[in-house]
Amino acid sequence: MADSYETVVYSLSPNCGLGEVEEGLIYAGTVQGFANFGTFVQLNARLKGLVHKSNILQEHEERDQIFVRVINIRNNGNIDLAEVIPKVFRLETVTKAFKVTKLAEIGKQVGRSVTLETKVAQIKQTSGPTIFTLVDESGSGNAAAFIEAGVRAYPEVELGNAVLVTGEVMRRQNQLQIEVSSMQVLSGDEGQAVHTRIEEALDARAEPEDIPLLVESEVMTALRPELRKVAKLIRRAVLEAQPIILRHHADADGICAAVAVEQAVISLMREEGDDLDTAYYLFKRSPSKAPFYEIEDITRDLDFALKDHERFGQKLPLIVLMDNGSTEEDIPSMKMARVYGLPMIVVDHHHPDAIVDEYLIAHANPYHVGGDFGITAGMLGAEVARLIYPGISDRIRHLPAVAGVGDRSEAPERQRFLDLVSEDYSEDECKDIALALDYEQFWLRFNDGRELVKDILNLKDDPALQKRLVSLLVEEANAAIEEQMAASMPHVTEEILPNGANLFRIDVEIFAHRFTFPPPGKTSGEIHDRLCRQHPGEPVVTLGFGPDFAVLRSRGVMMNIPRMVRELRDEITGGGINGGGHLVVGSIKFVEGMRKAALDGLVEKIGQAPTETPRT
Amino acid sequence: MADSYETVVYSLSPNCGLGEVEEGLIYAGTVQGFANFGTFVQLNARLKGLVHKSNILQEHEERDQIFVRVINIRNNGNIDLAEVIPKVFRLETVTKAFKVTKLAEIGKQVGRSVTLETKVAQIKQTSGPTIFTLVDESGSGNAAAFIEAGVRAYPEVELGNAVLVTGEVMRRQNQLQIEVSSMQVLSGDEGQAVHTRIEEALDARAEPEDIPLLVESEVMTALRPELRKVAKLIRRAVLEAQPIILRHHADADGICAAVAVEQAVISLMREEGDDLDTAYYLFKRSPSKAPFYEIEDITRDLDFALKDHERFGQKLPLIVLMDNGSTEEDIPSMKMARVYGLPMIVVDHHHPDAIVDEYLIAHANPYHVGGDFGITAGMLGAEVARLIYPGISDRIRHLPAVAGVGDRSEAPERQRFLDLVSEDYSEDECKDIALALDYEQFWLRFNDGRELVKDILNLKDDPALQKRLVSLLVEEANAAIEEQMAASMPHVTEEILPNGANLFRIDVEIFAHRFTFPPPGKTSGEIHDRLCRQHPGEPVVTLGFGPDFAVLRSRGVMMNIPRMVRELRDEITGGGINGGGHLVVGSIKFVEGMRKAALDGLVEKIGQAPTETPRT
Amino acid sequence: MADSYETVVYSLSPNCGLGEVEEGLIYAGTVQGFANFGTFVQLNARLKGLVHKSNILQEHEERDQIFVRVINIRNNGNIDLAEVIPKVFRLETVTKAFKVTKLAEIGKQVGRSVTLETKVAQIKQTSGPTIFTLVDESGSGNAAAFIEAGVRAYPEVELGNAVLVTGEVMRRQNQLQIEVSSMQVLSGDEGQAVHTRIEEALDARAEPEDIPLLVESEVMTALRPELRKVAKLIRRAVLEAQPIILRHHADADGICAAVAVEQAVISLMREEGDDLDTAYYLFKRSPSKAPFYEIEDITRDLDFALKDHERFGQKLPLIVLMDNGSTEEDIPSMKMARVYGLPMIVVDHHHPDAIVDEYLIAHANPYHVGGDFGITAGMLGAEVARLIYPGISDRIRHLPAVAGVGDRSEAPERQRFLDLVSEDYSEDECKDIALALDYEQFWLRFNDGRELVKDILNLKDDPALQKRLVSLLVEEANAAIEEQMAASMPHVTEEILPNGANLFRIDVEIFAHRFTFPPPGKTSGEIHDRLCRQHPGEPVVTLGFGPDFAVLRSRGVMMNIPRMVRELRDEITGGGINGGGHLVVGSIKFVEGMRKAALDGLVEKIGQAPTETPRT
Repeated sequence: MADSYETVVYSLSPNCGLGEVEEGLIYAGTVQGFANFGTFVQLNARLKGLVHKSNILQEHEERDQIFVRVINIRNNGNIDLAEVIPKVFRLETVTKAFKVTKLAEIGKQVGRSVTLETKVAQIKQTSGPTIFTLVDESGSGNAAAFIEAGVRAYPEVELGNAVLVTGEVMRRQNQLQIEVSSMQVLSGDEGQAVHTRIEEALDARAEPEDIPLLVESEVMTALRPELRKVAKLIRRAVLEAQPIILRHHADADGICAAVAVEQAVISLMREEGDDLDTAYYLFKRSPSKAPFYEIEDITRDLDFALKDHERFGQKLPLIVLMDNGSTEEDIPSMKMARVYGLPMIVVDHHHPDAIVDEYLIAHANPYHVGGDFGITAGMLGAEVARLIYPGISDRIRHLPAVAGVGDRSEAPERQRFLDLVSEDYSEDECKDIALALDYEQFWLRFNDGRELVKDILNLKDDPALQKRLVSLLVEEANAAIEEQMAASMPHVTEEILPNGANLFRIDVEIFAHRFTFPPPGKTSGEIHDRLCRQHPGEPVVTLGFGPDFAVLRSRGVMMNIPRMVRELRDEITGGGINGGGHLVVGSIKFVEGMRKAALDGLVEKIGQAPTETPRT
Repeated sequence: MADSYETVVYSLSPNCGLGEVEEGLIYAGTVQGFANFGTFVQLNARLKGLVHKSNILQEHEERDQIFVRVINIRNNGNIDLAEVIPKVFRLETVTKAFKVTKLAEIGKQVGRSVTLETKVAQIKQTSGPTIFTLVDESGSGNAAAFIEAGVRAYPEVELGNAVLVTGEVMRRQNQLQIEVSSMQVLSGDEGQAVHTRIEEALDARAEPEDIPLLVESEVMTALRPELRKVAKLIRRAVLEAQPIILRHHADADGICAAVAVEQAVISLMREEGDDLDTAYYLFKRSPSKAPFYEIEDITRDLDFALKDHERFGQKLPLIVLMDNGSTEEDIPSMKMARVYGLPMIVVDHHHPDAIVDEYLIAHANPYHVGGDFGITAGMLGAEVARLIYPGISDRIRHLPAVAGVGDRSEAPERQRFLDLVSEDYSEDECKDIALALDYEQFWLRFNDGRELVKDILNLKDDPALQKRLVSLLVEEANAAIEEQMAASMPHVTEEILPNGANLFRIDVEIFAHRFTFPPPGKTSGEIHDRLCRQHPGEPVVTLGFGPDFAVLRSRGVMMNIPRMVRELRDEITGGGINGGGHLVVGSIKFVEGMRKAALDGLVEKIGQAPTETPRT
Repeated sequence: MADSYETVVYSLSPNCGLGEVEEGLIYAGTVQGFANFGTFVQLNARLKGLVHKSNILQEHEERDQIFVRVINIRNNGNIDLAEVIPKVFRLETVTKAFKVTKLAEIGKQVGRSVTLETKVAQIKQTSGPTIFTLVDESGSGNAAAFIEAGVRAYPEVELGNAVLVTGEVMRRQNQLQIEVSSMQVLSGDEGQAVHTRIEEALDARAEPEDIPLLVESEVMTALRPELRKVAKLIRRAVLEAQPIILRHHADADGICAAVAVEQAVISLMREEGDDLDTAYYLFKRSPSKAPFYEIEDITRDLDFALKDHERFGQKLPLIVLMDNGSTEEDIPSMKMARVYGLPMIVVDHHHPDAIVDEYLIAHANPYHVGGDFGITAGMLGAEVARLIYPGISDRIRHLPAVAGVGDRSEAPERQRFLDLVSEDYSEDECKDIALALDYEQFWLRFNDGRELVKDILNLKDDPALQKRLVSLLVEEANAAIEEQMAASMPHVTEEILPNGANLFRIDVEIFAHRFTFPPPGKTSGEIHDRLCRQHPGEPVVTLGFGPDFAVLRSRGVMMNIPRMVRELRDEITGGGINGGGHLVVGSIKFVEGMRKAALDGLVEKIGQAPTETPRT
């Protein structure tokens, strides 16, 4: 019971309306503004009264706390107040019973006022209202709070806060929005309880459906738990409106992997109510220049992400690397990401260095379960995409076949994926699509070329356009390759190594057109393929080199390129030797002035490697 | 007459108002939303009624069709409805006679409701309303339809549809806008009739005025029909709000050509009611890096155009190539454009390869009518610009003179254009402006530098600024040329060829400053000019070469560079020979490792060409 | 007194209200629009009346002038008018006494109508209202004028005009805005008086506070007047809403200088009421590629500035160059800036060429007052920043220490700045931060990396993040340096020059990794440092060269590099020799084909320079 010397001051909770205000009682309010005739006082976000200037006792500034007695509630709802200055007082909060609505259910409450307990996933200041993206256990939604055009509403509310939101649900067509009348940060136990409940619910919603693989595969079956984990983490990011940056190898396999996930993520975002602009704002796909996540890439990604975080109240992004990311060359960038606490996921089929896993929250790689690079990133990506959004399956089911032939997979899954789509695409057509992707990506440089790529892959259901486009790109690509071969092939030199292997050397810098398609690596590959056909049944090594690099392709020679590179690095002082790759396909870098020493050393080692009669 | 067992259900056309609704009759409506007390039903876009919950017979979802009887029309216009479920019924459409207003006449209907029959030229979703750009036979205009901030209104309406639009005309200052109250797609014969009528009318409006040429010219008179066609196609694109991408050679002639058209197009757009932002959004001018439309350019243009098409409901663009585009090097890009059905226009004065015309909807080129490159692109461009927008004539009349001296035209038209502007600009001043453009464009790289270029050309009527700017740029350009000559000239080697010509060779890669003005081609040209002055009356060939290219300038030697290049390509295996240009000015590319063979071969051919005593 | 044959026509000033309108009198108005029943006429921006169609005497178009008699003022304020056509008349202006409010005081007038005399500092058309940025002697503020979404209000008002503005003050939170009801250009004496008054007041407000230096410094004390001038000019630009472009050397010293000023300017802008977006829109910080203001930079800056000026009614910018800008290499860009009247400021510690001052409105440089480059740009920048916004002092006080160690200052101030922050940062920690900045900037290329740089410098008060970030960057930078040294050091050649100095040569193009950190200049520096440690007490010169450049570092050899370069330029015909730098640290450029001659000539000169026993 109240001390009789105490005044009771009531504080109105955000959900209180006029019905909760009583004449004669004293309330705590906030000075909201001044007029000639008096001072406006906010009792809560929905209730405002006026203290006539004759009833003001002291000077105030805007946003000052003020105590007022309700002297009259008029018929039109206006509240007349008088300032009081209580000496000793006790504060009591007036609340009104309310029912908490779930975000997924606001569709049934259109036109009504609802109260929600949610987490704040994004705060975006538009030139009009402030848009809060809210998530709870049931879904996500947008709430618009307006104070003044371009001015941040509820500046005390921060990203990640648990908040109690009241507002009216607006709905037209497929867009729902809450027009906020009050928003209150929940702290302490109350906030914690909301956090925990939402966390558990989001975790459950992020769990992918249990769907079978597109084709039979021992390796991919063994990888299923990790693929599910990857899909769940990506789904979770979408449900929480966390931005996603997807970096991928800029070749046909990498593109197929990344585009499959892109389509799934965009579909999920659309289903969650995002419009197309928001979806492509939250999801960025970027082909990488290098075959790993370069420091320059993470620097650019961080630069943009931190500016967006500062400017749009955006969460820091989830980074997903596809057909990339599993080797120690990625470590410096991963360390940078870790400094800022960015979560990272890798889906790759390159031989992994164990150390990368220290930096990752998930890593799907066939080598982890006894598979090899024959299970290409595009195959893995399609399965991840289906786990993210099963409805995407039909649209992307041909991508693994394109990826498989593009990356020359020799795994049995390659044929199974080809069989899966044989009614729509022959093996040659898949090869054409892969070549079209490589060629188009070359000219796109490192832009995503989103719509062009979707057209090449027939993701907008226009097969006639796909046919015209692929057929033109393949024609152009082949003409460019022929032109390059005409310039290069006459300059290839041949020697027989001690181990009996044919070694072919070609300077791809001075005997090939530069800055055009095919670039040096692909030029070397094409030369190698032709030489292999000219020397059936013989071991063949092709060495395409420039001033400070060499690209190695081989058949029937059991080299271990990463080991050779390590040895040369130790043996050639001042050679600046670096490089790597797969066992029998790779590249090596050196300083220009030590090219002869580096190439001689390399050739000597190649000449010592055991050979075998190759499959032709 | 109606079967007596049948119920008649009326459907209200979009233009019906309260006067067309009758108590007691049954209407087909759409469920629009729910309130505590009942269900809102839309009878057409303008009329809404309420079915009290006691009068609802079954459950509905939003946008469901529903049949309702009008039980009462209140004094305030509210319509009380009751649901009915007719077993057998016949649908009758209630229409209201209306007068179709033309877009060009809405200015007289400000504040009133109008009905229009139009085609949809663009659909742009803003963060507020959806803006439909409409065209009819009389003009174009914008209509704003608002459903919810950022939400697409009338999602069933697509680009190119014929639509019946009703709305109120708003006008303040020079901007007219229709606030849409209903929009309905016209299909079948009705739609076809509207399409045809608008098509014919637009065609007529696009027809350029008949104005005389700026100067007398036999060649340009012969080209008039094609110039008119080019102008008409560009006018038509503007009238239909189709985006235009103008790619041009990045030199003084190309800039003059493109800027003339830019000014005309922007003026026409402004006259059609576009604001400046819209104008520069629909019209993009891009200097090209290469002297042709590279695959990289079309790739970038397509990437952006397809994304804009997806995102802003933008039409795919019209591509205009100026001072570029008439040779077979452009074919690969033209093929890409054709896959997407992009219309292309060329205005060029390079020697055309006939094959390009397969890909073009218009091609103005002096060679087609017996002229040659002396009629420069800037001369043609100015005439096209005047046909697009005659009011531009005075502002751009000096551009052909600048283009003519910039491209060293030897046609008689050069002097006529100089005479035309001799009161304002001397020949030397025109040369200065051309040099200023070249120099500024070098530093602009491949940005359009719109305002800077306009200032150099005095297109904002500030001759004092032009004078200061041109004078500084010319001073800097000449200083840079002198610096380059000081480095290069001492390294020029001289030999006398079998045909008596003086051959001068200079390695412009190792004996010139790199990555600065003047670049290698212009450096070679400057050297050639100086050597010609030092050897008056003698045939002179200057060969400026780098690791994988050579630039050829000549005087008094009757070479055919394209043929020489073709022959060398056949003769030098693995040389990667390419190139072309005009007969006596051109360039050749080769692979670096075959430079000696390529240059020796080239020099041998030059030495066999007939010589003549040159004009000095 | 009025001629009795004359009619008196009254013109209502913008500030007149209904109280100033009198029944029976004739007023001059403007036709505002048409309705079925009559014509609306605007008497001033606030007062509108209706001429019923029966009272219209002639046809009008919108915006026509019209004369009307007030026939009735209704109770609801509606004004009934009748058109009159006076033969002879005399115009009298009706004004109403008003009190001019200062912009700084509108906060006390929230909700009321005020009248202001101001200058227009910016005119920005939004998709909604037109926003005018106004300044007067007391401060600045925004005024929103709305005519139609996206349409420019008051098109007759231009940038820099003195205007009389009436409107209602809106305020919520910290944002004040005037909703314009009328805006009138003040011309003639009236306008001039306002201009002068505002000019004088702004000048007074721009005056920096008088605060002591961070550390004792004779040189900086002597430089104080110029530092104050720089600060005042920057403050003045902020107060007038003039954009600022800050270009700086892309190394640790330049970054510290520029970031200090950036923080101060942003703080001042925020205090002046700009939101964060506006602040970063008006202030751009750009690291420069070259160690001077390149033509390419000014071209890009001008291209953007002129487009913004055209599009957003933005003033042309103030250009501030830091750790850059004091040598004749900057002159061509400064000339370009001058053509457009852009004011330029330099804060630099490189040896200045007197000629630059012809182009500058202020230039703070220690050499002007007997100091040298030991007073680094970062030290000067921090003091300028403090004069711009004293409240920034604590946050940036460690920047001069980082700059000092980063630029290897040997001035006594270096230690004083280190002592100042010794509780927070040791000398080694400052070196680490400087290295982290250099390394991060390398990967940022020429982006500002704003948030990353702020984190490295702990400007967001997160020392733990700073520690993690700097420690990682230093680790990576050192690993990269070690890798580079392993490739380069074995290829250094040594010779003893006639003057006894050790000359070390290294080809940093072919014996170092390219396109990675450390770049050639820093690689040469690292090699030099190691060689100096290996040869204590001996004079050492290190010459790192590439195909067309050489970088010189020296210890104990009293060279004058700028003079050597000038001599070589004269001596070596066709060498294309250029370059410069400090006396004993610098670089030289030449054409590739003359490298041997250039390096031989250079070495000969080095061998003639006097030596001294160096401090080790």
